[in-house]
Parts: sequence; C-alpha cells; structure tokens
Amino acid sequence: MAQKKTAKKEQEKIPLMRKRVKPELPGGFRDYGPAEAIARAEMIKTIRKTFESFGFDPLETSSVQRTEVLTGGEEDSGKIIFNVKGSQEETSDSSLRFDLTVPLARFIAANPDIPKPFKRYQIGTVWRGERPQAGRYREFLQADVDIVGSSSVDADGEIVAVLYTTLKNIGIENFVINYNNRKILNLLPNFAGFPEGRLWDILRIVDKADKIGIEKVTQEIQKEFNREIAEKIKQFIFESAENGGQSEIMDDYKRIRGRISDKFFIQNRSLVRGLSYYTGSVFEVILIDAPEIGSVGGGGRYDNLVAQFTGQPIPAVGVSIGVDRLFAALEKLGKLGNTQTKTIVLVVYLDVRYKRDYLDMTQELREAGINTTIYLGDDQTFQAQLSYAVKKGIPFVIIYGEEEKKKGVVAVKNLATRKQEEVKRERLVDFFVE
Amino acid sequence: MAQKKTAKKEQEKIPLMRKRVKPELPGGFRDYGPAEAIARAEMIKTIRKTFESFGFDPLETSSVQRTEVLTGGEEDSGKIIFNVKGSQEETSDSSLRFDLTVPLARFIAANPDIPKPFKRYQIGTVWRGERPQAGRYREFLQADVDIVGSSSVDADGEIVAVLYTTLKNIGIENFVINYNNRKILNLLPNFAGFPEGRLWDILRIVDKADKIGIEKVTQEIQKEFNREIAEKIKQFIFESAENGGQSEIMDDYKRIRGRISDKFFIQNRSLVRGLSYYTGSVFEVILIDAPEIGSVGGGGRYDNLVAQFTGQPIPAVGVSIGVDRLFAALEKLGKLGNTQTKTIVLVVYLDVRYKRDYLDMTQELREAGINTTIYLGDDQTFQAQLSYAVKKGIPFVIIYGEEEKKKGVVAVKNLATRKQEEVKRERLVDFFVE
Repeated sequence: MAQKKTAKKEQEKIPLMRKRVKPELPGGFRDYGPAEAIARAEMIKTIRKTFESFGFDPLETSSVQRTEVLTGGEEDSGKIIFNVKGSQEETSDSSLRFDLTVPLARFIAANPDIPKPFKRYQIGTVWRGERPQAGRYREFLQADVDIVGSSSVDADGEIVAVLYTTLKNIGIENFVINYNNRKILNLLPNFAGFPEGRLWDILRIVDKADKIGIEKVTQEIQKEFNREIAEKIKQFIFESAENGGQSEIMDDYKRIRGRISDKFFIQNRSLVRGLSYYTGSVFEVILIDAPEIGSVGGGGRYDNLVAQFTGQPIPAVGVSIGVDRLFAALEKLGKLGNTQTKTIVLVVYLDVRYKRDYLDMTQELREAGINTTIYLGDDQTFQAQLSYAVKKGIPFVIIYGEEEKKKGVVAVKNLATRKQEEVKRERLVDFFVE
Repeated sequence: MAQKKTAKKEQEKIPLMRKRVKPELPGGFRDYGPAEAIARAEMIKTIRKTFESFGFDPLETSSVQRTEVLTGGEEDSGKIIFNVKGSQEETSDSSLRFDLTVPLARFIAANPDIPKPFKRYQIGTVWRGERPQAGRYREFLQADVDIVGSSSVDADGEIVAVLYTTLKNIGIENFVINYNNRKILNLLPNFAGFPEGRLWDILRIVDKADKIGIEKVTQEIQKEFNREIAEKIKQFIFESAENGGQSEIMDDYKRIRGRISDKFFIQNRSLVRGLSYYTGSVFEVILIDAPEIGSVGGGGRYDNLVAQFTGQPIPAVGVSIGVDRLFAALEKLGKLGNTQTKTIVLVVYLDVRYKRDYLDMTQELREAGINTTIYLGDDQTFQAQLSYAVKKGIPFVIIYGEEEKKKGVVAVKNLATRKQEEVKRERLVDFFVE
C-alpha cells in the first residue's frame, strides 16, 4: 500500500499521464511554431522599441484578476470572460483579463503615488470566453500604450502619434485612423430631438454604417422613431462637418491630426467603438489593403475608469494594438519574414575523435554571437546531418574531418549557394563575424 | 425601454464598471511595476539571446490546454491546475498550463513531421492552482529549453551547458548544478532488497535529505522497513560513488560534466526531483548565496512523455529556469539594475508658442533612438515639470524658451550632475548620440 504521509511532495502534485490522450487544443486556441514565433518576436521587438522611444515604460499586470474587478460588480456583465478556479477550490472569484486597460486602471487605483502623467506600455495576452468561431481566437496578444493623469488633448495626440509610428515601423504603409469624439455623439439627442436614454440604441445602429451603408442605417433609425429624426441624425452624422458649431472639439481634432500625416487621419462621425467607458476621443485603424481583417487597433479617452475603484476620476487615454490581427495582415500582405530558424551554423558531428574540436568551435561561435548548433541526432550519417540543416533552413554547415584537421582548416558550406570553402581553423569566427 | 435587438454589439459584451470595487488582486498574484518590469525585460533578453546562441528556436504554445492533456486523463491527478471556463459555458474541460513541457509534448505529438532533433525554447507564464501562501505565487514565468528527438547523452550535456551559460550570462557566479540519474535510483530495490513497488515511497524520503539530513532519512526508512535495508540504502545513496559498477552511467555523467566547469557540477544521489516523467538524467540548480530561494532551475530526460499521446516514444531532455525565482535571487544579491525608466530625455513644455519646436525636437530624438517624452501633465509650471523628471528618474531635461530661441540653442540639464549646458539647436541629436 502506498504511503500517504508525504503526500505533499511535488511528485504527487504534478499530474502524470497514463492513459492515451488525443493531442488536441481546445477550440479557439492555437500554437505558434518556430517560423511564426520568430516573425512575431521580431514584430514585438519593433513595437516595444517604438513604444519606448515615445517615453513609455513597461508594466506587467497579473493575467488573473478578481472577477468583480473585471465586471465592475455587475453580475450579468461578465459574459465574455473566462472564469478561473483552482482545482482544490469550491468556487471561482477570479477570471482571466479580457483586456489590458481594466488591469491598468486597477493598478493605478492601488498605487496612487505613482508619478503622473504615467506613460506605460504592456504587451500581453488577453482572453475572451466567447464561443469559438472560425478564424476567431479566444487567446490573443495585445500591445497597449496609455497615458494616465493628463487631461490635455496633446496626450490624445501623443497616443495617435505612437500608433501611427508603430504601424509605419512594422512596415504597414496603407492605413487610415478613423477618428471621432464621444462628446460630439453626446450632442445627438438634443440636435435630433430624441430622449437621451435612447442614445445607445441609436449609436448601435450608426456604428453599422461601415458595413450596411448610410441608407440602411437611416431606414433602421426611421423604424425606431420617425422620418424627421432619422433625417436629422443622417445630417448630423454623415453630412455636416461643423454641426452644432463645435469649434472647441474641432480645434482638438486639428491638434491631434497635426501630429501625423493628414491623409492617415479621417474624421468619421459614425465611429462609435463599443466600449462604453470612453468619454472623449475614439479612434481605430483600418488597413486599406486588408479591410476584411477588421480594426487592427483602437482606443480613446476614458476619464472615468479609475474612478470606479477610487471615486476619484483620473483622466486617461490609450490605444490597444491587436498583435495577432496585425500579424495576420502582414502575412496576407506578404510582409512577414520567412525565417525558419535563428540558427546560423550547424557543426556536423563527423568523427567522435574530434568531438572536443566540434565543441570548441561551437563555443567560439556562440561567444561571438553566432547562433550555432552541434548535430545531436541519432542518425549520424553525413547525409542525415546535411539534410537536417536543409530542412531546418540553417544557412551554413561546418565540416571538419581527418583531412581538414591535417590541413588546419575547416570546410564551411553555404547551403544557399552550395559553395564550399576552406577557412583556416583559427579564422573560423572571423569568417562569420566579418 | 432599451432595445435588445442588437444585443450582440461589443458595447454590451464588454463589462462596464458601475459599482465601487476594491482595487485588489486575488491571493497569489501580483503586478510588476515599471522598475521591476524593466529589470525583468533585461534578464529575459539575456536568456533569450543565450538560448538562441545555442541554436534553440522559439515556440509559443497555447496557455489554455484541454484538462485531459494536462492530467493525462487521470481524474484525481489534477490537483494543482487552474480550470478555465467561459462564462457562457456550463462545464470546464480546459485548464491553464502548469508547465511548458506537457504543452511541448502535445505540440510534438500533433506535429510529427517537425525536423528532429527539435531544439526549442519558450519563455512563458505558467499557473499553479495551489492555495496561496506567503511568498508563493500562483502565476510565474518559466524559461525552458528542450531537445526533442535525440537519445544521445550529448543532448543532456547541451542542456546542462545552456543552463550553465544562461546563469553566468545573467550575472550568477556562485551556484551548483546537482546531478543524478533515475537509472541509478531504479537499481535501488534490487541493491537494498525491497519490492520495486515501494521505490517511490523510499525516494520521497531520500529527496528530503537536503532538508532533514542523512540520519533522519535513515531513521525514517528504518521505520518503513528494517535496519538492514535502511543501511543498504544509506550506503547506496550517500556513501558509494561507484555502487553496482554502473560504469556506463558514470561515463554519461563524465560526458555531461565535461561540458561545464567541474566545480559547478555535483553528483548527488539523493536528488530525485518530483516529476515522475523523468527517465534518465535529473538535475537542479542551487544558488550558494541564496539557498533559501530553493532551486532556480531544473530538468532532466523524459523519453516517454510524447508516447502518452502517440504510443510512440520520442526521446527528450530539457530544463526549466524559474525566471521569477532568479529575479528574486538577483534582487537579494544586489545584482539587479535599478532603472526607474527607459526614458532619457524630457522636453519641458514651457511656452505654447514653441509647441512645434518641442514636437520637432522630440521627434528628431526619437528617430535617433533616444527615448524621449514631451511633458503632458496638467500642472504646467516649470517646477512641476522638473520635479516630474526627478521623480521619474529621467536623466536629462531640455529647456527651450524665448531666450534660447533667440540664440538658436537648447538648454540641456543633466539631473544627476545638475550641470546645464547650451547646445546648438541643430546639434541637439548629436549631443545625445555621440
């Protein structure tokens, strides 16, 4: 009989696998293999560098949050979140974050003394517990920048500028940033003559304009109210640029637009963006060459979110870039690198007598910053080793046998050009570094 | 009355916050503020670079896996995992990964054609649903390297070498890698004369030797069996280095040790490491200057894990580095940088007339790779702006007012030396780049 006294040992806590199990992922989740992971890492590096050049510092919030923090205590509002429960716990009061903004607001509320304006970035995974659909994932990476503690429209401009520069830096040329301001939309009930309580019903219809067109939107609104109101709304949203004489908001708009090239910034009065925490600017990016991918980034000003924790409003503005969607877009546009491996050199394991030499070469190259692998496969034929390098996409192989040893050289074969040359043993590192 | 027809819009799916909510994290979770996140990013960059220099490529597996994959289908073995359930779903069949090894094995099983040996690294979050305790976290970052598809002991040596080099590269000097081999431990029943079925009961006791000492271990074993067996086990584990004439295993040991400096590699027959999927080498790192932190990394050979999915064994060996524990160790040893911000320059917003100049300077510096921020705070007094730079730890401020404009210069103040100097406007970037 097994002893249970020492049952706390790790051995028993880590599950074993005894039954044959299908190697499948749950619906809506995926892995990224090496080629994709290399391209993603490259993209993330560019994003990080751009964010830092704009003076944003990293913050890493917990992926698991109290459910109440995510839902704001509204029991019926947690529809899209993933609840999390330790398998020894009875009930769940925690969930996976569905964005990086609410955890940021929580951090700000819990750390009131952090110097402001607080410019932070976070590149992190978020989860949405929606039912899986084709092409929609439930785990994805977001890259967010936010400025907390500045009510100036220059902060909105800074966010739009970092969004613009990030897209440019990762190689996206053809895009627009659609811009709108919630303050303008808030004027709609008064302008068109319908009760304020109906504003969101109208905005939900207006928001579909990009998909169903202006006429359909006007018809739907007419069904809700009457022709007069529908026409007024149409005029407000789609026809007049200066309606209500909102010169202050127009000034803000111009100040933001001034930060980037004009042709990338478009005023779009039908842009609503769903999140109801926005209080001013809202914007989102559409790729002109891949509109079917949808918005690859968006954000806005949310001056009241922190107040939900502290009662004290703290102005804030930010943007989320959808890293996976951008990645899909770059792939579609043929702008992704196709690097299969980061490894530059394979040292062929040819003769056990020279193992020390192989290890020495390997170490010299690694220390010089040349990513190098020594062949470790069970099939040690020369053909198997060469074919391994080809399949992996490793550009160079190093061959060192009796003949090379005698001559004090190393044979370096370039697998792309199929050219092979002899390099003096002591000049091996120089061959790759120069 | 609100319309519910268009209830599928994002606006309703993303939870709002209406009730005041405490800004707390669940027990066992934490955030990393900017200074910590900067130091962690630095460490992760070094780890990644080292892994790549050894010819490992990145792989990103899904954080959510089918529970059956994690538990191997054993209902009662999932004690430490976090179950995950979409809030619209009735039951949960998914969980958060508790390590990076099982998701790797799943990936290998699902992608049988990937060229082998497959050398991959992954730096990723794992979760353990244990009850929270002081100083123990339920979410942490692991950095793993594994070689899949090589049965050679040289692969074990490569893993030990990359572990050793990684620790050195991040600035850890004083550590040992304890090494043992499960094949030796498997000889114990026969050597000491007890039934094979009792092996794990004995190993659980032996594994405590580092904490409770040899004598206590021998006493405990004596209680289980008798004095003779206890003495035999003591002799096998603690006294004889060459017991059973296991010269083949000793050769392996020497081959692995040959990859790193001898004094860092210690044979320790009482090292078990809990995970029962290990089949050969097992090893773990102890920091000599911070033993209370526990093992900061460990691994071994697990030749049968992939077979749990495919029935086909694929040899594999790897190591996990506990990034958070290493981070805690570096902090304790005073080896962490204390960079509060990555921002180098604050452009003071002094005079609205020169806003264009401030934006131009900011952009020039950013494009030259100098991380720069323009002051965006609501309190625009000079004193507030200077004090912001000091609190944030930004080393330089740029001052540009009427006088500077007239002279065609920019005043650059070094906040560390308190020295201020005038730089020609057109030489501003050179001042920081040179």
